Amino acid sequence: MAIETSASSIISFQTDPSRYAHWKLSLEGPIARLTMAVQEDKPLKPDYQLKLNSYDLGVDIELADAVQRLRFEHPEVRCVVVTSSRDRVFCAGANIHMLATSSHGFKVNFCKFTNETRLSMEDASRCSGQKYLAALNGTCAGGGYELALACDEIILIDDGNSAVSLPETPLLGVLPGTGGLTRLVDKRKVRRDLADLFCTVAEGVRGARAREWRLVDQVVPKSRFEEEILRRAKEMAATSPAPSGEGIALTPLNKRVEADRVAYDQVTLELDRQARRAILILHGPRAGGPSDAASIRGLGASWWPLQAFRELDDALCHLRVNEDTIGLVLVKTEGSVQDALALDETLERLQDDWFVREVRWLIARTLRRMDLTARSFFALIEPGSCFAGSLFELALAADRSYMLDDPERPCEVALSSLNGGAYPMSHGLTRLQARFLGEPETAAKLAGAPRSYDPAQALAAGLVTVVADDIDYEDEVRVACEERISLSPDALTGMEANLRFPGSEGCDSKIFSRLSAWQNWIFQRPNAVGDKGALTLYGKPERPSFDPRRT
Amino acid sequence: MAIETSASSIISFQTDPSRYAHWKLSLEGPIARLTMAVQEDKPLKPDYQLKLNSYDLGVDIELADAVQRLRFEHPEVRCVVVTSSRDRVFCAGANIHMLATSSHGFKVNFCKFTNETRLSMEDASRCSGQKYLAALNGTCAGGGYELALACDEIILIDDGNSAVSLPETPLLGVLPGTGGLTRLVDKRKVRRDLADLFCTVAEGVRGARAREWRLVDQVVPKSRFEEEILRRAKEMAATSPAPSGEGIALTPLNKRVEADRVAYDQVTLELDRQARRAILILHGPRAGGPSDAASIRGLGASWWPLQAFRELDDALCHLRVNEDTIGLVLVKTEGSVQDALALDETLERLQDDWFVREVRWLIARTLRRMDLTARSFFALIEPGSCFAGSLFELALAADRSYMLDDPERPCEVALSSLNGGAYPMSHGLTRLQARFLGEPETAAKLAGAPRSYDPAQALAAGLVTVVADDIDYEDEVRVACEERISLSPDALTGMEANLRFPGSEGCDSKIFSRLSAWQNWIFQRPNAVGDKGALTLYGKPERPSFDPRRT
Repeated sequence: MAIETSASSIISFQTDPSRYAHWKLSLEGPIARLTMAVQEDKPLKPDYQLKLNSYDLGVDIELADAVQRLRFEHPEVRCVVVTSSRDRVFCAGANIHMLATSSHGFKVNFCKFTNETRLSMEDASRCSGQKYLAALNGTCAGGGYELALACDEIILIDDGNSAVSLPETPLLGVLPGTGGLTRLVDKRKVRRDLADLFCTVAEGVRGARAREWRLVDQVVPKSRFEEEILRRAKEMAATSPAPSGEGIALTPLNKRVEADRVAYDQVTLELDRQARRAILILHGPRAGGPSDAASIRGLGASWWPLQAFRELDDALCHLRVNEDTIGLVLVKTEGSVQDALALDETLERLQDDWFVREVRWLIARTLRRMDLTARSFFALIEPGSCFAGSLFELALAADRSYMLDDPERPCEVALSSLNGGAYPMSHGLTRLQARFLGEPETAAKLAGAPRSYDPAQALAAGLVTVVADDIDYEDEVRVACEERISLSPDALTGMEANLRFPGSEGCDSKIFSRLSAWQNWIFQRPNAVGDKGALTLYGKPERPSFDPRRT
Repeated sequence: MAIETSASSIISFQTDPSRYAHWKLSLEGPIARLTMAVQEDKPLKPDYQLKLNSYDLGVDIELADAVQRLRFEHPEVRCVVVTSSRDRVFCAGANIHMLATSSHGFKVNFCKFTNETRLSMEDASRCSGQKYLAALNGTCAGGGYELALACDEIILIDDGNSAVSLPETPLLGVLPGTGGLTRLVDKRKVRRDLADLFCTVAEGVRGARAREWRLVDQVVPKSRFEEEILRRAKEMAATSPAPSGEGIALTPLNKRVEADRVAYDQVTLELDRQARRAILILHGPRAGGPSDAASIRGLGASWWPLQAFRELDDALCHLRVNEDTIGLVLVKTEGSVQDALALDETLERLQDDWFVREVRWLIARTLRRMDLTARSFFALIEPGSCFAGSLFELALAADRSYMLDDPERPCEVALSSLNGGAYPMSHGLTRLQARFLGEPETAAKLAGAPRSYDPAQALAAGLVTVVADDIDYEDEVRVACEERISLSPDALTGMEANLRFPGSEGCDSKIFSRLSAWQNWIFQRPNAVGDKGALTLYGKPERPSFDPRRT
């Protein structure tokens, strides 16, 4: 039975530690402990049980929340130990019965979100200096090992039994698709032939060999395991100084899910399911916002950029899993260009403040989530909009932008210095660099001399796709929307995934391009998901039967 | 009806200009003209007609042959004009009815081969200085434009009608998968939002806009078209001097296709279809081969490295399309390590000779074809083998290598300076660099001080995967083969595509990772290939009907 989303079973991405069912977050000075203790009788859908610390989207939503909260609420934390409360089991990976009973689209979006969560751990390490230590106190299989791979270091218990493994290919006929194959050879730089061996041996590798093959960093006898974890966590914690200042509580978002509308305070998502189209409106910052660090801290989670981008992030997640028939999102902003630029001035001036930096990194992550969202985005730049600086990234992330040129109702866009590097895409380029790949000097020039642009100037500078006057604008946009919606949703997904990432690839982007694209292919193959496929038959007495043809 | 390969309809990759059905190759000094004149009644399979200069694998095999021959047989050629003999039509792209009636595996392999052919054009330009000029004398759609994108320059006729277009997404619900999307934004660096517009407009773009959007380099009125093509071809031809010396004829390969064996003079492919396994044997060079340029030229196509790697290339192509149930290829060499190293010494010492250089580039292309072949490769390093230097690349390209350690029957492998850079993979790294991504100094050190290695040394140096003594070797290999064949063919294809390419990606490799992987996914989606899919219904009165869900 396929999992389908419907109005009656909306998946929520909002949680907090008091509501965690599957993780325990404990803190002791600079060291946090994130302990996986999956409750098998609390799956997101009632179709399966979460045995042996296996996970589903619900488990991962809690993990993503914890990683985010640690950065904002506990900036003093310098090392996060990821471990398990179960004896002899670290994590058995993604729940296979969940995968086997999920629709193709749900599987793909589940993997995408879990991939983003693991990237958020690496982002916390790289940007915020919150290092992650995987303390593998037991068997660590599949997605469990992929979780470990996302950590800075991996310590495996040596109890004569516990192994790390990626049994997806031998047992399930699919890939370790949550970054596993990529991180194995690109991040940990395991030799490719050893990786090939490792990925075909269901029982995995343990002990000294696991370290020799670079699969783990240390193998420690059971008797010294806890002590060594603590010792190493302290060492890792000591490598980067904690920022000064108290944490900021990430208070619950004010989200109202209505029949054809999802409303937050700064973000509104208007749904026209008949037309398969949504309008995403971001209400820009108001004049008079705080401009010094103390006042900003005083506002905390209600400081505009934090609030607005947390809401936007949630709206994107909501759209992905709860509104899969929406094919096109029209992105609008409402507010003042000047106020948006003033905010960017603050974001830039106070970039040495840890909280301001965290907010910038959260904006960057949210924009990357947008880049990776398999929906068409058209930015509509209209009078009263505020596509300026950080908010202009929304137009740059969109597949196209349409701008109204009406002298009666003037309209502008603007760049700020933040367009020059604050918000890198997952393949490492800024959105301006990706846009002007053919003229690198243009990207540098535009970012180096930020200013505002009227429609003619914006078109000439290459900052918008289409400029139309008041006579043509509405028709142009209407026709473009209708045409977009008439195209194959799958072809658009593939096309956008290719056109959005011109230029370089890195480990992060390879996870979504090379690895996820192949995994999505395999997730459709009868050898995995057919009646006799390995994923379908996992745990059943019958053996899978494969079509032997190689493609 | 799906195209299936069977013993009765073996696809051959061997041809020559006297047998071309679809292309005319004409030469005038430094300028060659490759004219597409597809005979619609000569398709590779009788299921479709090749209307409007559309192509199938048969058409592309001729193109690949022409590109290769131009380098070897006509080194004086400095510019190749690619054009069409049809009035007002350059090329309509891949034949849609062929695609719609082909099996999934055939589609994937067709696209892979055509992609490799286009890369071979870019390789000819980059390495041999044979520049490609696309002379678009008429409509240029889909794969036709992708062929143009593989050229160094594109000149489009301005006749008020002829356009370039990538109508795959709007008309067929698939991607421009022969490099189109990647070359658009990565090679020609078309702005991503303009690329988005372009790829959704079935009728394409023509005239000045095509040039402004960087889709073509020049737009020339019909009256001046021929003259301008010639002028520009002469200019391009003048940019690199021709090598001195006559061309070398690529004489036909001596290929015997037997019931369970494909035999060439230096290469043998032994097929065990029951076990889904092949043994690929390369017979190494013999002592006393020529060591000066004149003698080598005298041998021409029968010079060992040229002959052996042309045969290997053909064997790989044969395997892909004619033997799709073979899942595992055991790679063996037979010969003398010393003789193989002597040959490499010649290949290195004479690298300034154009013919020797061409042979090295052909070896590099063949090895890249192996990297991209969706079969498991295990190299078996046994007594009497000659995995040395250039031939050691076969072991490096393999997914694993097994080496026998038997003091009674000694066995060695060796590196030569050619392992240090002569044979880059499609993502730009050498195979040693890819293997030792985690220790770049190791790759440089090994390549910088080439020597031979006995089994223990080879294992210690990380050059082989498994070393086993005479008691264990056979069992170890047998079990590994059985295990490999028991795994899902699809999961292996995806796994190998990920593990073989650690590290960087470039335009060439992105074509196979990001673009082809997504295209393969789409080639399975009901929205393309289902009963109501766009590819299935193309040319029929019924309109496609899409599942609206976005993944």
